[in-house]
Amino acid sequence: MHALSKFFQPSSVAIIGATPKEGKVGRAILENFIKRFNGRIYPVNPGYDEVLGLKCYRSIKEIPETPDLGVIAIPALQVPQTLRELGEKGTKAVIIISGGFRETGTKEGEALEEELIKISREYGIRVIGPNCIGVYDNWSGVDTFFTQKMKKPPRGYVAFISQSGAFATALMDWMAYHGIGVSRAISYGNKIDVDDVDLLEYLGEDDKTRVVLMYIEGIKESRGRLFIETARRVSLKKPVVVYKAGKTSRGGRAAASHTAAMAGDYSVYRAAFKQAGLIEVDSFDEMMDFVRIFLDQPLMRGNRVYIVTDAGGVGVMLTDALTSVGFEVPVTPPELREKLRSILPPHCIVDNPIDLTGDTDDERYIRVLEVLSQREDVDAIVVVALPQVPGIKGIFVDYIAKTKEETGKPVVALTIGSEASMETAKKLQEKGVTVFESPERLAKSLKALRTYSLYISKNKPGVYSN
Amino acid sequence: MHALSKFFQPSSVAIIGATPKEGKVGRAILENFIKRFNGRIYPVNPGYDEVLGLKCYRSIKEIPETPDLGVIAIPALQVPQTLRELGEKGTKAVIIISGGFRETGTKEGEALEEELIKISREYGIRVIGPNCIGVYDNWSGVDTFFTQKMKKPPRGYVAFISQSGAFATALMDWMAYHGIGVSRAISYGNKIDVDDVDLLEYLGEDDKTRVVLMYIEGIKESRGRLFIETARRVSLKKPVVVYKAGKTSRGGRAAASHTAAMAGDYSVYRAAFKQAGLIEVDSFDEMMDFVRIFLDQPLMRGNRVYIVTDAGGVGVMLTDALTSVGFEVPVTPPELREKLRSILPPHCIVDNPIDLTGDTDDERYIRVLEVLSQREDVDAIVVVALPQVPGIKGIFVDYIAKTKEETGKPVVALTIGSEASMETAKKLQEKGVTVFESPERLAKSLKALRTYSLYISKNKPGVYSN
Repeated sequence: MHALSKFFQPSSVAIIGATPKEGKVGRAILENFIKRFNGRIYPVNPGYDEVLGLKCYRSIKEIPETPDLGVIAIPALQVPQTLRELGEKGTKAVIIISGGFRETGTKEGEALEEELIKISREYGIRVIGPNCIGVYDNWSGVDTFFTQKMKKPPRGYVAFISQSGAFATALMDWMAYHGIGVSRAISYGNKIDVDDVDLLEYLGEDDKTRVVLMYIEGIKESRGRLFIETARRVSLKKPVVVYKAGKTSRGGRAAASHTAAMAGDYSVYRAAFKQAGLIEVDSFDEMMDFVRIFLDQPLMRGNRVYIVTDAGGVGVMLTDALTSVGFEVPVTPPELREKLRSILPPHCIVDNPIDLTGDTDDERYIRVLEVLSQREDVDAIVVVALPQVPGIKGIFVDYIAKTKEETGKPVVALTIGSEASMETAKKLQEKGVTVFESPERLAKSLKALRTYSLYISKNKPGVYSN
Repeated sequence: MHALSKFFQPSSVAIIGATPKEGKVGRAILENFIKRFNGRIYPVNPGYDEVLGLKCYRSIKEIPETPDLGVIAIPALQVPQTLRELGEKGTKAVIIISGGFRETGTKEGEALEEELIKISREYGIRVIGPNCIGVYDNWSGVDTFFTQKMKKPPRGYVAFISQSGAFATALMDWMAYHGIGVSRAISYGNKIDVDDVDLLEYLGEDDKTRVVLMYIEGIKESRGRLFIETARRVSLKKPVVVYKAGKTSRGGRAAASHTAAMAGDYSVYRAAFKQAGLIEVDSFDEMMDFVRIFLDQPLMRGNRVYIVTDAGGVGVMLTDALTSVGFEVPVTPPELREKLRSILPPHCIVDNPIDLTGDTDDERYIRVLEVLSQREDVDAIVVVALPQVPGIKGIFVDYIAKTKEETGKPVVALTIGSEASMETAKKLQEKGVTVFESPERLAKSLKALRTYSLYISKNKPGVYSN
């Protein structure tokens, strides 16, 4: 069993600081567990016999078993003693939500944090936190993300490790809105023990996680080598997308104020990420775009992209964007040109981009996709599906998805517009076709997929030949 | 009166090809005019005495006045004769929606188009088209955008000139969804007469247009110099945002297939855009981001940006993004630091980014914004307003908007999340605060505003000094 598994799949949890008081962190966390956790829950609070319908324990000692996981949400001064009691009880995994430690910049805070480190070592307790929002596990129901204003994303396969609690919360909320499924999210705060390296290692083994996303401000120098080794191992199993904050010297200073992270020399991080096969993103948009394309698309075995469009202009934009990032948008070869000519009206353009023009119906898409599906010289297909075109009824959605399934190649789509466009996008995404609004973001995301595919092909021979 | 004004503010319109038949372009256009045009409408169709409740004319000759504007939506072969009849009638502005001309790549199509050119010159008719979707005017109700599947954007102040009809349609639909107000949109198809230069000139004078957006595949070489001269003149009055498609050689080939545009050497365009003070965008996202920031924000008089945040991580991301594009994120000077210390709890970070932390309420924002409003050394304020934070009630929205109004400086905001976040964004935007989701896009947009501000300060001395 993995050392961290008790954080994610505990049979029982003690919530120290559980309370019925509205607006309190301890109540929000207890409610989270009651809602979805299917293990045993032990609220601990000397002031109550019962909280939200559960028996409440006056002390940790009174709990009738050794809880797998402890969650601490009480004032900082009481945390060391509580951690010690959990240690005595035999609990080996503790999430400390409470703030008031090193992040305060005070001597007292620092001393309290040192005490926590000492106790955790003494009892062999693994600690997430302090000063964190902890763990959101969509499969087990472990959920210490205490803000009530965050919409919960659906169950799924993206894991998120974040050095920023508020950003983790906002991102979960964002993913909920966009229907992106999450496996587990972790924000570790001051990370006195469990850090990015441990979590990456755990998520690498986790069969509910298919893509790992990391927001990093700084990794301790002493953990640098292990981080690279771990990242390299995990990268061969699943894509790891990483956003490094504190890239600039000014940003580094902001990071130091924020999490006391030593943001360090960005060029060193950059080189390490590359060496480890990590996929670095430079923006919020890339973060989410790349995660989506890695979640849904198979590896891309070659460099040749075909575009099928109902809007010539968007075809041109895509051609620019795709070739700019290094893709080939092949000029349609003669025999394919002839084939397309035979199935399309004469005013359609059979050059790549294949322009079905604004009077297209679903049928033209279907016919062209059938032809492209058969070809060895197509490595990915981009379908522009602007639904404003009068003749589009919408059944082409099924055929776009079918093309992806039957060819085992990346098939992505682009739509721009209002509700009808969103509806088309939603249907496509439910069927595993990644949809973009921006030609440039589509191209960059496909490029990330291609780059990762090449990395796998080089470092894990036999997965596919390029 | 401007030569093109009859396209946008005609007193009367003849719609040749008006028909009651469902699904026909001539019906869709007639319906558009009936819905919103407040001049006189003359449907022309030899097959009907009445169409959709309006008297229908068998021929152009029978119309009891000279229509200011003619709209032609009939088969290509009949277009030249119809154009001639409009010329005889004295009409000086004609939109030819019909396709079947040079874009077919046939000799016949080319010959027909040549005939149109000849007739338009003979009678001194200005022509938009053929093979286009024409004009969407949100102020006069001239509307030949015939797809029924496009949501109509609200009235407003962005004008759009597009070499792609389908893209223009999709973009209107997109802008409708995002609530961005449009003044006029024009897609000119084969542009045998009215082109980008004419339209830019017209929109430069148009007091309903505050920002011009252009999608260009290619400008005729013979019009190059005039384009630069016009653009330079218009740029001094209002920002002109331009997207050049066909940047790469492969994209240029796609553009040639699409609109027979000579996409030309991109570096030449790039230099020309710069020389003319145009704001070039490289992506769909920038297109819409820049338009939004130019619509709502005042010029930016200096380079110093302050960040106020409730999420430290997002503050770090913003600091990186802003400094990467050349902004200064000043370290808070001592006397400001002291001032902030006196109004904020001790755990807040008074360095810039000013981090109110995750336990903030609206009050902290309001107090900090009041302080920043008073300062000469602040050139723009970025407010991170993640509404997932429990203590935020939402009244800070009014104060963010007030700060912008009272200081006359750019104030932009960032939110990430689901419905609550969208709601905050919507309220802010209604009050003129531009909202972004991505730190990097926010920084690039603010940079575009700053670059344009510098251009104005240099070329139009006296508007503001910096």
